[in-house]
Amino acid sequence: MTSSGLNKFDANLLKIALTLARRGIGLTGPNPSVGCVIAYGKTIIGRGCTSINGRPHAEMVAIEQATRHYLYQTSVKKEKITVYTTLEPCAHDDTSPSCAKEIIKFGADRVVFLLKDPDERTHGKGVSILESAGIDCVNAKVYKEEMLDTVSGYLKRKKENKPFVSLKIASSINGKIGTKKGESKWISGDLSRKKVQLIRSNHDAILVGSKTVLSDNPRLNLRDEYQNIPQKFIFILDANLSIPYSKELKIIKFNEKEKIHVFTKKNCDKEKIKQIRKLGLNLIQVGKKKGKLDISEILLKIGNLRINKLLVEGGSSIWTSFIKENFFDEIIIFWGNNILNGTAMPTFNDFLPVNTRIKGFPRLKLRYIKNWGNDIEAVWQPITKET
Amino acid sequence: MTSSGLNKFDANLLKIALTLARRGIGLTGPNPSVGCVIAYGKTIIGRGCTSINGRPHAEMVAIEQATRHYLYQTSVKKEKITVYTTLEPCAHDDTSPSCAKEIIKFGADRVVFLLKDPDERTHGKGVSILESAGIDCVNAKVYKEEMLDTVSGYLKRKKENKPFVSLKIASSINGKIGTKKGESKWISGDLSRKKVQLIRSNHDAILVGSKTVLSDNPRLNLRDEYQNIPQKFIFILDANLSIPYSKELKIIKFNEKEKIHVFTKKNCDKEKIKQIRKLGLNLIQVGKKKGKLDISEILLKIGNLRINKLLVEGGSSIWTSFIKENFFDEIIIFWGNNILNGTAMPTFNDFLPVNTRIKGFPRLKLRYIKNWGNDIEAVWQPITKET
Repeated sequence: MTSSGLNKFDANLLKIALTLARRGIGLTGPNPSVGCVIAYGKTIIGRGCTSINGRPHAEMVAIEQATRHYLYQTSVKKEKITVYTTLEPCAHDDTSPSCAKEIIKFGADRVVFLLKDPDERTHGKGVSILESAGIDCVNAKVYKEEMLDTVSGYLKRKKENKPFVSLKIASSINGKIGTKKGESKWISGDLSRKKVQLIRSNHDAILVGSKTVLSDNPRLNLRDEYQNIPQKFIFILDANLSIPYSKELKIIKFNEKEKIHVFTKKNCDKEKIKQIRKLGLNLIQVGKKKGKLDISEILLKIGNLRINKLLVEGGSSIWTSFIKENFFDEIIIFWGNNILNGTAMPTFNDFLPVNTRIKGFPRLKLRYIKNWGNDIEAVWQPITKET
Repeated sequence: MTSSGLNKFDANLLKIALTLARRGIGLTGPNPSVGCVIAYGKTIIGRGCTSINGRPHAEMVAIEQATRHYLYQTSVKKEKITVYTTLEPCAHDDTSPSCAKEIIKFGADRVVFLLKDPDERTHGKGVSILESAGIDCVNAKVYKEEMLDTVSGYLKRKKENKPFVSLKIASSINGKIGTKKGESKWISGDLSRKKVQLIRSNHDAILVGSKTVLSDNPRLNLRDEYQNIPQKFIFILDANLSIPYSKELKIIKFNEKEKIHVFTKKNCDKEKIKQIRKLGLNLIQVGKKKGKLDISEILLKIGNLRINKLLVEGGSSIWTSFIKENFFDEIIIFWGNNILNGTAMPTFNDFLPVNTRIKGFPRLKLRYIKNWGNDIEAVWQPITKET
C-alpha cells in the first residue's frame, strides 16, 4: 500500500467522495456515512453514498451505477479504473458480500481511500483483500478534518462505546434561554429553527430533560422537507418520572413510540413504570451520581443502541450535567437577536467550584460561524485547557 | 440640482470617497469624517479625508493635492472636473473659507455628494452657493447605509444633542463577563483585544462605571499602532465617589487628566470633590433618576462637549442603565471562546419587569459578524419591537 502518489485529479475525486459522504450524516446509522466515486481514466462512471440505515454501502451503490455506464459495458478496456472512497472498503461478509470482494469482482485497478475503518472486522483487512487481488491501494493523507467530521459519531462509538455528543442551545445575545417564567418561544428566528431541522437530521438521536418537556412540550420531530427521514431515537431524562406521560404529550404524539426511551433512576414508582410501558415507550433505569442520573452510564446505554451522534437539546441542567462530566464533543449555539433580563433562565448552571479562576474554565475551538438573518449560529469543540 | 444621472464611474468614485471617510471615524471630532475624491475626466487627481480634529476638511485636502497634479497645472482644460464628496460641502466661513467657495475657486464643473449636511449653517446652502456659480450638483442616492455609518455620531448629536452610544461587551459564550469573584482577564483573546483598540479609536470618548474601575483598574488608553492617536475623552460614572482617585489609578496614569471627566451625584463629599479637582480631573454633578445617575442628563452634558460617538465599556450595571432608558445605538459584543459558571457575572441585570413576555424584549438587527481566531465579534443595532 502506498500513501503518496496522489495527483490533483485524485484529490478532486476524493473531495467529491467527501461531499457524497456528507449527505448521509445522521441517516446511515449504525453505519458510518461513506462517499464513493469511480473513475474510468478521467471519466466518472459511478457515484454513491451509504444508503439510509446503512445498506447498501457507498461502494456498492457506485459499482452498480458504474456497471451500467457505457464505458464500462462496451469498451475494450483502455483506461484504468480507480475507486475513490472516504473509508476503507469493508472486509466482512455480513448480510451481503464485502465491498472489498465486490470491488475485485468489479475489476478495479486501484483504490484510493481516506481513513482506515476502525471496525476490527475491517481495519487493514479490507486493504489486504484488495492487495492480494493485485489492486493498488492508497491511503491518502488529505482532508483529514473534513473526513473526521463525516464519521465523528462512528469513530467515537467505536472507540468509547459512547455517541458523539452535540449540545444544541438557543439563547439570547446575553446567554438566556428563556424568560424567568420559562417562556422560550421564540428566542431564535425562523431560519435558525429551520437549520435545527437539518441538525436533527444529521444526528441519530435527540435527548432532552424532563424540565424541557414539562415547560416547552416540544415535538422533537423532523418537519417540512425533513419529514420523510426515518424516525430518530428520542431519549428523555426523567429521574423522578415527573412528566405526565400520555398520548397527548407532543413527543409521543409526533414520534414513533418504540423509538422513545425514558431514562429514569432505579426503584421508581412501579405504577408510573407500568403506565409508560403501556404507552409503548421504552424505559431504562440507571444509577445516580452526585444526586443526578449517571450520564456516563446513560451514554453507554445509548452507545449499546448503536447511536453514533446524539443531539442534546437541553435544558440548562441537562447541558450542565454533560459539561460537568466533560461528556460533550460539540456545542452548537444559536444566538437569537434579542436581549433578556439578567435573572432570566441561564444557559448553564454552575459546573465548576465558584472560586475557579478564568483559566480553569473550558476553552473551545470555533469550528463554524454563520448568520441566519439576524441570528448567529456558531459551532465550538473542546480544546485542551490553558495551563 | 439633479439626483439622477449617476453613472458607474460616479458610483465607483463615491465608494472611494466613502473608504476615505471611514478612515477618519472617531478622529475628526467634533466634525464628521468626510471623504473626497477629485476626478479630471476619468483620472483621479486628488483625494482627501477630514483631518485629525476636523481641520482642514476633506475637500480642502483633495483640492490641495489636485492643484499640484500635472493634469490640473499644465493642460489646456480638455476634461471636466468632478468633486466627489460624502457630505455636502460646507457653506460657512469659519476659521477658513467654506469648502463651497474653495471648490468654485478651484474650478470644478460638477459636485457629486451623498448626504446633505444636517448642520443648519450648511444644509442646502452649500449646494446653493455651488449652483449659483454654475456648478452642477448631484445628491446621489446610493450607499445610504454605508454613508450613515460614517457619520452616525455626528448625525445623532446634531439631531438630539446626544452622542451615538455603542455598548462594548466581552462575554463568555454563555453571556458571562467575569467570574463570580469579578475576574475578567481575559475572557476574550488577543485578536479581539486588538480589535477593541481600533474600536476605541473609532469613538470620540470612552465611558465606564466605578465598579469596573474598582475591579479591573483598566487603562482605557490607546496602545500599539494606535498610541499616537489624540487622547480620547474619558467619562467615569461614580455616583458616590467610591473610587480612590490617585495618580496610581491606571486611568489617570495612562491618560491626559484634562480629558477625564467624573460624573457624580449632587451634594457629594466636598473633600473628595476637592481631591479630584486637585488631581486635574473634571467633575460634573448630575441629578438622579430612580436611584441612579440620570443617563439622559449625562448624555446631554457629553453632547455639549461635542462628542459624536461614545463607547460604553461597562460593566453590567452601566450597560443595564443605558438599555433600560433605551439610550443605545449599537451593541458590540465579543464572545470569548470559553464557558463560565451560571452564577458568574451576567452581561446585563434586569431592565424590564420579570413577567415581561419574550416579545416585549428588544429585538436587534445584526450589522456585522466576524471571527477573531476562536472569538466572535458581532455588532447589533436596535430595531422596532415586535408587535
